[in-house]
Order: sequence, then structure tokens, then C-alpha cells
Amino acid sequence: MVLIETSKGVRTLTLNRPDALNAFNRELWGELCHAVEEAKSDNSAKVIVITGSGRAFSAGADLREKMDTNGQDKWTQSPSVGVTQLVDLLVDFPKPIIVAVNGLGVGIGATLCGLADITYMAASARLRCPFSSLGITAEGASTYTFSRLMGHQAASWFLLSAQWMDATQCKDANLALEVFPDESFMANVMERAEQLASMPLASLIETKSLIMAPHKEQLHAANIRETEGLARLSGGPSNIEALQAFAEKRPADFSEIEDNK
Amino acid sequence: MVLIETSKGVRTLTLNRPDALNAFNRELWGELCHAVEEAKSDNSAKVIVITGSGRAFSAGADLREKMDTNGQDKWTQSPSVGVTQLVDLLVDFPKPIIVAVNGLGVGIGATLCGLADITYMAASARLRCPFSSLGITAEGASTYTFSRLMGHQAASWFLLSAQWMDATQCKDANLALEVFPDESFMANVMERAEQLASMPLASLIETKSLIMAPHKEQLHAANIRETEGLARLSGGPSNIEALQAFAEKRPADFSEIEDNK
Amino acid sequence: MVLIETSKGVRTLTLNRPDALNAFNRELWGELCHAVEEAKSDNSAKVIVITGSGRAFSAGADLREKMDTNGQDKWTQSPSVGVTQLVDLLVDFPKPIIVAVNGLGVGIGATLCGLADITYMAASARLRCPFSSLGITAEGASTYTFSRLMGHQAASWFLLSAQWMDATQCKDANLALEVFPDESFMANVMERAEQLASMPLASLIETKSLIMAPHKEQLHAANIRETEGLARLSGGPSNIEALQAFAEKRPADFSEIEDNK
Repeated sequence: MVLIETSKGVRTLTLNRPDALNAFNRELWGELCHAVEEAKSDNSAKVIVITGSGRAFSAGADLREKMDTNGQDKWTQSPSVGVTQLVDLLVDFPKPIIVAVNGLGVGIGATLCGLADITYMAASARLRCPFSSLGITAEGASTYTFSRLMGHQAASWFLLSAQWMDATQCKDANLALEVFPDESFMANVMERAEQLASMPLASLIETKSLIMAPHKEQLHAANIRETEGLARLSGGPSNIEALQAFAEKRPADFSEIEDNK
Repeated sequence: MVLIETSKGVRTLTLNRPDALNAFNRELWGELCHAVEEAKSDNSAKVIVITGSGRAFSAGADLREKMDTNGQDKWTQSPSVGVTQLVDLLVDFPKPIIVAVNGLGVGIGATLCGLADITYMAASARLRCPFSSLGITAEGASTYTFSRLMGHQAASWFLLSAQWMDATQCKDANLALEVFPDESFMANVMERAEQLASMPLASLIETKSLIMAPHKEQLHAANIRETEGLARLSGGPSNIEALQAFAEKRPADFSEIEDNK
Repeated sequence: MVLIETSKGVRTLTLNRPDALNAFNRELWGELCHAVEEAKSDNSAKVIVITGSGRAFSAGADLREKMDTNGQDKWTQSPSVGVTQLVDLLVDFPKPIIVAVNGLGVGIGATLCGLADITYMAASARLRCPFSSLGITAEGASTYTFSRLMGHQAASWFLLSAQWMDATQCKDANLALEVFPDESFMANVMERAEQLASMPLASLIETKSLIMAPHKEQLHAANIRETEGLARLSGGPSNIEALQAFAEKRPADFSEIEDNK
């Protein structure tokens, strides 16, 4: 479910579950984590690029898989383990990480942008953090990375409101460094990735390590806090209403729900 | 002095001392703090909006009140207690805070924007931090929030220079998320506030708590440091020259003053 | 090698080694540090402006001086002591620091912008951080300041890629507050510097101290980490290839070098 290619020092990891818009199920979490670990110790990979196949980048955690039989349990356990582990791996990854958002990104498909050293977006791509509308909370260390990138206000709106941001908005908010036309998207990304990969690996590693030093502890702490927050809300009344509304294809209505702290 | 309305989960607190451009005197500090505390424990308020009545948002601490009889004493004591207490309340407020800057904001009328989760500004609104020109220093935790929002350079210029920033500059500097035409300002703000208030309260509270977690301690520490800084400078030679110049309606002249550390 | 002028409370320090594009050699480091220390204790200097004479701001550490006889040793010792000391002095400098980038800035000529309270750039000026291309790593506390100013992504690209940024890009990335036409550059800078210098010195010092308080420790820590990183990479295989390529006027080729961690 992850295609792996290496060229000119650039290791490209392509999420390859296009029929499900590259939504993360147990296998995709596992394969991506494995591919990242492999790239860490392989000197032929100086820079990694994470992208998606087909028209989406990633639709996020696989809601359909979660909803089989017993939604709540799976929700708390398997996918949050997946995201928690991936966040830790990416935060500790020593070489430059480029996230190439080729199409829509939802949930972890959006929050991954905050874990990248550089995010590029295709002009037609757009992102959404649906956490509030699902009665849960944010993940992917986004509660730390997004306010660093976008400022507190844009991060708060994006994480709380469940609204879409298009590629231009993402660039203006510093969540993506550059936006390229869809037609030439991967060519433009690879050009920049190869530029980085032409530099001495020791310099890339040292400089990235210096840039990350003041933030690593906070990133891991955010990951832990978010995992705890997800556990608190998963299976709660708002989460159940959201999942039922999703199954019944109707809008959720949280107005009468008393899961207030 | 504070109008309180609740509609669709949005609690609006309107500073209502329009004849004094909603400048903060002892009563207004007290009423606003009380209204914020009330909103905290009331589940019918999922989001709060702070705005002003009339043509100003707030002209800041009430200079005329300070200057009755003994300017220095009042300056150090009453208003800084007001601002210090309000900052602590807002930093700890668990639900989304929207600041809707309907007109000019000066001093705490400007620094409140940094304590909001989201600030919206009317097109004709503008902000000023007159602290240097008054021989005092910044408050409202702005010495922490402004450099996080605007970057160190814009924050330094805005806090040190006492220059105005118009609504477009504030938006470009990330101090406001959006600017709306004056005519439709509150309608636009309420639309966004209601969007947030339609989300599960538990998600709003959990996600805001996660976003605030890495910063709460620093925000309270900034509030303490600023209160101490204000106490150091209040009643000093530059502050006295500024207050006298204000009373005598002449420009202050600090060039010969020796309050240099 | 540093011209010193004071007017209306503004102390201007002009790097004056125009034949070498104001590249830093031992003497220039020493003179600039001395001038900064002098300005610290002199109350006639309320604001300092650092700029360059001739067409460059500063070409960075003097590569030609480093390469005399024994490149590696000098690289690790003298210039890094220079930059390490200058960073500590500027981080602790109590009054507003304006960096006026009149022309090209490379290396420390670029990273100084992150140590300024405010950076202004001439329209034709541009900046480059060549650290990766030299097989070394970033300095000037830029691994902390740049991501605070520009966001993690732009900072990572700028520090890792060795690409140029022009004045408009620097302004859009918050590395400079304003860009002025070359013809009126210093006049515009001085106008703003004098505006700050017309404020009470006690307020300038107190407010700057409050803004710096949450960051001083991290800035000194970054300086130490970067100095250690430079020591690790200086004289390593990539650094030697870069210096040899520079001497032989050919492009460096790092593709076969095994200095990977």
C-alpha cells in the first residue's frame, strides 16, 4: 500500500490505496511507518517525499473500517496507535521530510503537513480537519505545529471549525511553502527535493537537528496529550452522534448533547 | 457597562461606555471580568464574542480617571489590577474567545486581540499601543502573544513605536484573521461564531485546551512580568512628563529625561 | 573597519570593509563587538542601526582569510568565536537593534537579520545562507530565529537549500519588516530609527526586555548548539570538498562523500 522509489537521493513514499482515497487503515499505517524507518537508516535516501496516488493525498483515518461492528473500540485503539506512532517517527526522523499534497487531505491527511519540513500543494488540493464535526479532537501534533506555522488564530479556526482550506489559503497561512499547477506538480516537487538532496547529508542532518532541537520535546508532548484527548472523547455522546449521522447520511446535530465538561 | 446577549450558543459581551469610547475604568474592568467568569460555567455559552458599542472598540485604560488627584498611585494600582486579572481570566477561559474589533482600539483595546482565539476587525478599525509614548510598558500579555502572531519584528515595532496599525496591516500581520466591511461586520462575525458554536462543546474545549497547553504558563508569566514592569515605570519621570503633556495638550518631550537604566 | 555615528539618539554602526564586501575577518568581528558593547553603556545611543558601506551588507565570514595555509583550523576556531561572541552580545543588548540590509548578505550577513529587533532591506538586496553548500551548518542563532520569523518550512528551505531570497521574499517571509527603494533606503531607515529614539529610553528597554524574556535562554542555547555543530562539521570531508572546489573554481560534488552520520 506504499510505493517506494529512490532517485538522485530522494526517497518517494506514495500512499497507494487510491480506491479509498488513500485513507489510513491498519495496513497503511503499518507500511508507512515501516517505510519511514527503512529510509532513516538507508544513506541512499537523503530526503523523503510523502505523496499520494490517484486524485487524493489522503482522506485520513478510514471511517468505514472504524465503523465495522464496534466503532468506539477501534476508534480509540487501532487508528490512534497508528497516528501516535507515525508522529513520533516523523518527529525523530533525522533527514528532510517533504509532504507533497497532490489532492485532498483530511484529518491526518491535513495534519501531516505540519510534521513536514516543507509542504508543497497542488493548486487543486485542499485540506480539512474534521475533528470537531466528528466529536473528537485534533491529532498529528497539529495542536502544536499549526499555531507555530499559521499563528494561533488561523490554527484555532482551522482546527475548531472543520472548514476547508484551499491551496492558496494554506500557502498564505504558511502551512504550505509553495503551490504548483496540478500538471507539473510532482516535477516541481522533485526539482526542489533533488536540490536539497544534492547537499551534503551531514549538513542536512546537522541543520535539521538544530532547527528541531527547541521543539522536539514539545512535539512529543503534544502527541501524548492529543492521544489522551482522543481517548477521552472517542465513544462519547458527540462522537457517537457523529458516527451515526455519518452512517445514516444525515447532518449531525450536537445542540442537545450534554458531554460538556 | 457590559451588555450580555446569548443566541445560538454565542454569548456576546459588548463594552458599553460609548461616551468614553469604551475606555476601561474600575467599573468596566469589574463588569467584564464578572461576565467572563459567568460565561465560563454556563453551558448555554459555547463561544464568547467581545465587542464594543458605538464607534470605538475600546480606548484603553481611562486616562482621565487615572489623572484625578494623584495620577501615579492610581496608575500603578487600580488599572493594572484590572488588566492583570482580566488577562489571567482570558488565558484560562476554556471555550473559544472571539474579539470583534468594531472600531478603534488603544492599549488594552489593542492587546486584547492577542488574547483572543480569533480576532475579526471592521475595515475602518485601527489599533495602537501607546505604551512608550506614555513612558510605561506593554500589557495584556502582548509581549508574548504579539511576537507569536506577528513575528518578533512587527511586534517590536508595534509595541515600541506607538504607531497606528490599520485593519489591513493587522490582518497582514496575523493579528486579525479576517477584516469585514463596517456595514456587515457583526453579521459576518456572528456567522463564524455560530459555525463554531454548532460544534460539540466537548470538542471545542478539548482542542482549545490542547492548543493552549504549550503556552499557558508563558502567558501567565508574561502577565506577571508586565505588571512588574508597569509598576517600575509608573510614576517615573517619563510617565509624569507624558501625563503632564497630556493634561497640557502639548507633545511630550523625553529627550532630556534621565530615567535610563 | 566599523564607522560609528550618533544622531538624534540613533547610533549607526557601518561595516566598512567595502573592498571585501564587508566580509568578516578577525578585525571586523572584534571592532563590531567592541562598538556594540560601547553602545550598550552609552545613554546617547537609544537605538542602534547596523548597516554596510558600499554595495554589500556583508559577504559573511571571510572565506579567503580562512583558506590561508590551514583552512580547517581557522574555520573552527577564529570565525566561530567571532560569531558566537557577537550573537551573545546582540541577544543581551538591551536597546532596540535595527539591521539595515543595504545590499547582499551572505552567511552571518543574512543571519544577523534574525537577531535584529527590526530588519529593513533595500529593494535590490538579497540574502543567502550557504551553509549546506559549504559542508557546514547554520549559525547566528538562525536555527531558532528563522523558524520563529518565517515559520518552520520557509526557515528549513532557506537554511538547508543555500538558495537566494530577494528582498520581497524576505519581507513576505517576515525576515524583514519593510523594503525601501535603494535611493531612499537609509533615509527611510533613519526616519524609523529616530521615531523609536524619540521614545523614553526606559520604556524601550523595559518593553524590549519583556519581549525577549521568553526567548533569551533559547537564543543562547541555539548559539551553543550551532557552535558545536560547526565544530563537528568543520574540516570534515564535505567541508574540505567545498573549500577545495571554491579554491579550484569548480562546483562541489558531494554525491560520493561518506560523512553521513
